[in-house]
Amino acid sequence: MLYTDLEDVLVKVRTSLEHDDVAGAVAALEALRAPDQADLFSELEDEQQTALLPRLDPEDAADILEELDDEDAADIVATLPRETAARIIDEMEPDEAADLIGELEPAEQEYVLRQLEDQAEVRPLLLHAEDSAGGLMTSEFLALGRRMTVAEALAALRTWKPDAEDIYDVYVVDRHSRLAGTISMRQLLMEEPAAELADVVETDYVSVLVGTDQEEVARLMSRYDLATLPVVDPQGMLVGVITIDDVVDVLEEETTEDFQRFGGTQPLDRPYLDSGVLTVVRKRVGWLLLLFLTETLTGSVLRHFEEQMAAVVSLAFFIPLLIGTGGNAGSQTTSTIIRALAVEDLDKRGLFRPLFHELSVGLVLGLVMGVVAYTRALMWNTGPAVALTVAVAIFAIVVWANVLGSLLPIIAQRLKIDPTVVSGPAMSTLVDATGLFIYFTVAGIILAI
Amino acid sequence: MLYTDLEDVLVKVRTSLEHDDVAGAVAALEALRAPDQADLFSELEDEQQTALLPRLDPEDAADILEELDDEDAADIVATLPRETAARIIDEMEPDEAADLIGELEPAEQEYVLRQLEDQAEVRPLLLHAEDSAGGLMTSEFLALGRRMTVAEALAALRTWKPDAEDIYDVYVVDRHSRLAGTISMRQLLMEEPAAELADVVETDYVSVLVGTDQEEVARLMSRYDLATLPVVDPQGMLVGVITIDDVVDVLEEETTEDFQRFGGTQPLDRPYLDSGVLTVVRKRVGWLLLLFLTETLTGSVLRHFEEQMAAVVSLAFFIPLLIGTGGNAGSQTTSTIIRALAVEDLDKRGLFRPLFHELSVGLVLGLVMGVVAYTRALMWNTGPAVALTVAVAIFAIVVWANVLGSLLPIIAQRLKIDPTVVSGPAMSTLVDATGLFIYFTVAGIILAI
Repeated sequence: MLYTDLEDVLVKVRTSLEHDDVAGAVAALEALRAPDQADLFSELEDEQQTALLPRLDPEDAADILEELDDEDAADIVATLPRETAARIIDEMEPDEAADLIGELEPAEQEYVLRQLEDQAEVRPLLLHAEDSAGGLMTSEFLALGRRMTVAEALAALRTWKPDAEDIYDVYVVDRHSRLAGTISMRQLLMEEPAAELADVVETDYVSVLVGTDQEEVARLMSRYDLATLPVVDPQGMLVGVITIDDVVDVLEEETTEDFQRFGGTQPLDRPYLDSGVLTVVRKRVGWLLLLFLTETLTGSVLRHFEEQMAAVVSLAFFIPLLIGTGGNAGSQTTSTIIRALAVEDLDKRGLFRPLFHELSVGLVLGLVMGVVAYTRALMWNTGPAVALTVAVAIFAIVVWANVLGSLLPIIAQRLKIDPTVVSGPAMSTLVDATGLFIYFTVAGIILAI
Repeated sequence: MLYTDLEDVLVKVRTSLEHDDVAGAVAALEALRAPDQADLFSELEDEQQTALLPRLDPEDAADILEELDDEDAADIVATLPRETAARIIDEMEPDEAADLIGELEPAEQEYVLRQLEDQAEVRPLLLHAEDSAGGLMTSEFLALGRRMTVAEALAALRTWKPDAEDIYDVYVVDRHSRLAGTISMRQLLMEEPAAELADVVETDYVSVLVGTDQEEVARLMSRYDLATLPVVDPQGMLVGVITIDDVVDVLEEETTEDFQRFGGTQPLDRPYLDSGVLTVVRKRVGWLLLLFLTETLTGSVLRHFEEQMAAVVSLAFFIPLLIGTGGNAGSQTTSTIIRALAVEDLDKRGLFRPLFHELSVGLVLGLVMGVVAYTRALMWNTGPAVALTVAVAIFAIVVWANVLGSLLPIIAQRLKIDPTVVSGPAMSTLVDATGLFIYFTVAGIILAI
């Protein structure tokens, strides 16, 4: 069953719970896959969740907690008896368990940790920033000695029972636990059983330091098509492994953040529908106010050119048209440049290539828009002089918007500021005030006012 | 070596080639990983590429072609002797080989195909749309009979030598080649050697039809944390397997397209720096013109309210400020809603929840902006009546922008139009004309003009 047919099951689970038939609800839920269980589960009332979770198989309950937002999972766990909570958390993958425990109250944290069988695996994971390699990695990996044979490694694999299902590589370490090489299970199967691991492992592997940012981790794994990535501490000791499924989630999360930032708002920390009205307001109001204050510059420019406007009133009709087109051209440019920075290492190619590219594009687009604007202005019976003013101004504004839109994100990146800070709204606002200035300067020259 | 230190190697390769030391260049290149080789390779001149590629180990050459853009790879292959081209393509993964061959001239295609050892694997892949499951899948998978034992399956695995490295699952089919179950290599290792595959495979697997859209494939694999996904035809016959690394590329590509569309431009088909000026212009000019024509509505609105503007000239100073803020609020809303549609299935929750959410957010933001605008207007000595007009208008415009920004993407999605069509520029443009109308209507009431 796929995720589109959950409504029927939800009705069934709800009906069962209303008739106190918890076993029926459990059966309906356990027939689903974990992400679907979690989706359905989060649609239930809080009391229903608390009643249902301890009745599920602990492995299923653990899977559901893994799929939920960490904060939601912690809220539910806080309502459970501590022993039940610990029993369920013990079945979670260590990295997910650590994320959840990190959200609990300190007193609760210590208690749950002490109850865990996996304590030794989970505790070190609590030390790392959530958005670093250390925060993404699991401490559940198979590290074997260099002198072991392939047959012994296969035997070790057979008795290894990790909570996670998707680990396909075996790690080989020296006697100081320093990572010495990796080998995939498939490769291991194909080697001579009597061979020593040291002789068959891949020593030219990619690894990251525990403090590496998660965005860098995602880039590496995506670039080198890695299913798993070993994490080492500064001494080279193997401390964890990152699996690709976690990175897919990171990519999705980073995309959402970039998108929201580019729309001119601070990213939400939680899913949209779970974010309260005041949270959403708080994430947006800062940019809205900052852009408002910047935009008041347009008022100053207009007051500065008050006489010109009074002399030729029809100039005012074109104001939204001109600055709107400038903002659009700027937004087109900056969205393209921001993605090229993210996926093509554009910032390593220098400033001039993108600048020159956008200058050329801006000249052509400006010419097209100038011709169209000239025609449109004539149709409004403004006379050829005003039409020429509008045409020249739109040409200059489009070129200017393209130049700004290519330079600003790259400069931001160089200053180690996220380039999405040059959002669409930020571009429009910048182009509005400067565009008006261009417009009235052109008008002053052509109309001699 | 990681991807940031390529400059030195590039210099070395170039110097070697200039001194006709092809072997030196080959050695420097072969020390790198495939994605780095490809990056470096694409920095070389066309003649250097053509000289170098046949001298590389065919497997390395194949890896480079796999990493390059399909069109670039086809351009290079077209310059090679046909035998050399076929020898290299034979070492490529079948799905990548099919993508490349699809870009060749028809006559060339047939010749290369007939030369391939992997012909039987590659030919069927040419039939599927590039953005479907069929276009993403590889035909290189291990399908075993249900009656085989675990020991026999492991033996089969040992002798299987696929071109791809990242296949971790084994597929079990019935005698009509219909998919009957899947089992991971790790699971296979842990089962009794004498057990029959039919008794140990997972039968509750996720699979997709060959025509499924790649975006849906990416959603499924990301949702269910799948490393591989089997592809079946309408009769249930196993025809291919999709691996997660291809899906990570799809996610990146779709993100780039969404980002560019949201910036108000049609997506580029190729990397930014490889796209010519005229191509970029063609992708942008359509939207720019359409938005320009829509924006001319603002001129009509202004002409309609010409008397009011002439009566109270200071109203004009606030025009960019008001419509700019409306556009910003609209862009904030639509960017959040578009991502929630992409990752949270927002469209399945009905129109009212997001509408109500954004209406509430809009009321609060509108109130804040109204107070700020009132203060700012007083500081410009416009008098309390104009200040009140500006405050009420900005309140109404922000609420209106939030409502539009939440409804339009969801309606687009329901009409099967990509919601990113409601881009930041589109929102600004829509809010500009309607916002002016709101402004002057409010002015008419409050100032009685």
